[in-house]
Amino acid sequence: MNRIVFKPIGIVEKGLPRLDKKKSNKTSRFLVESQIRVFDEYVEGLDGLEEYSHIIVIYHLHEAGEERVRVRPWGREEFPEVGVFATRFPWRPNPIGVCVVELVELDKPYIKVRGLDAWDGTPIIDIKPYTYHDIVRRPKIPWWAEKRWEELSQRWNYKEIVPWLGPYE
Amino acid sequence: MNRIVFKPIGIVEKGLPRLDKKKSNKTSRFLVESQIRVFDEYVEGLDGLEEYSHIIVIYHLHEAGEERVRVRPWGREEFPEVGVFATRFPWRPNPIGVCVVELVELDKPYIKVRGLDAWDGTPIIDIKPYTYHDIVRRPKIPWWAEKRWEELSQRWNYKEIVPWLGPYE
Repeated sequence: MNRIVFKPIGIVEKGLPRLDKKKSNKTSRFLVESQIRVFDEYVEGLDGLEEYSHIIVIYHLHEAGEERVRVRPWGREEFPEVGVFATRFPWRPNPIGVCVVELVELDKPYIKVRGLDAWDGTPIIDIKPYTYHDIVRRPKIPWWAEKRWEELSQRWNYKEIVPWLGPYE
Repeated sequence: MNRIVFKPIGIVEKGLPRLDKKKSNKTSRFLVESQIRVFDEYVEGLDGLEEYSHIIVIYHLHEAGEERVRVRPWGREEFPEVGVFATRFPWRPNPIGVCVVELVELDKPYIKVRGLDAWDGTPIIDIKPYTYHDIVRRPKIPWWAEKRWEELSQRWNYKEIVPWLGPYE
């Protein structure tokens, strides 16, 4: 079988805290400022990125467990088991993360962002600008994903902390 | 240097036509219905994907040329040269494509989509659902990207062909 080989172009130097699963005091990723360091040979590739308010970070979920084909979203009994490609669950055939984040500051070789769903030490594969072609105004999602969104947006007061995020009502 | 190794989970069986660069009769990717075939061992992973109206396709830009760090967007003289990470140009350090598309039909092992920016034979790395966390309502982009958007949306009449796409006015 063909293999596809990539190389890290940077690393998450400050990411989300690794929390004890038993603790419930998780924070929202949108309240955490993360720092990515881009390796010297690629820093020039960041020129002009500061013109964007948001970027897409693509990274290697390097601590993901063994791949699964079916999963139950967030392990919740009331949610249906679905295929892994119908979720953003990290233990997937290719453990790759794609995350839309707010660009807080470009201070080469550092990129400071808000909203990145990655731990310290995560290898960065690519950085892309978020453009108008990435916006679906009102996508359809399953009821359980809608429920999860409602819970999160209420718990963390998304209207206040991420007024730029989410579908138009 | 560490290497990150992925494997194809599918392939683009019908993609965008490869056009002669000299010809100007390019079509919009939103007018093309593409077909992805997911390999047998991963087909179960698609269960439930049909509940989404849009998905994110992640693929290997396997015919990209040698990586560049700086590029001039679409080779246009009036646009400034910028870093490759400030563009979606394919000749990047890791030739990986991320494309938001409309899910037309899930007919396992086939996924029919509209809007995929990939040619026949492109290896698929991952499929993710497009959710509310992927929506930035009104992102800021540079003037040249704004200009390009205006041109494309007028040329192809986006309001008609992709009413779901783009920022709210």
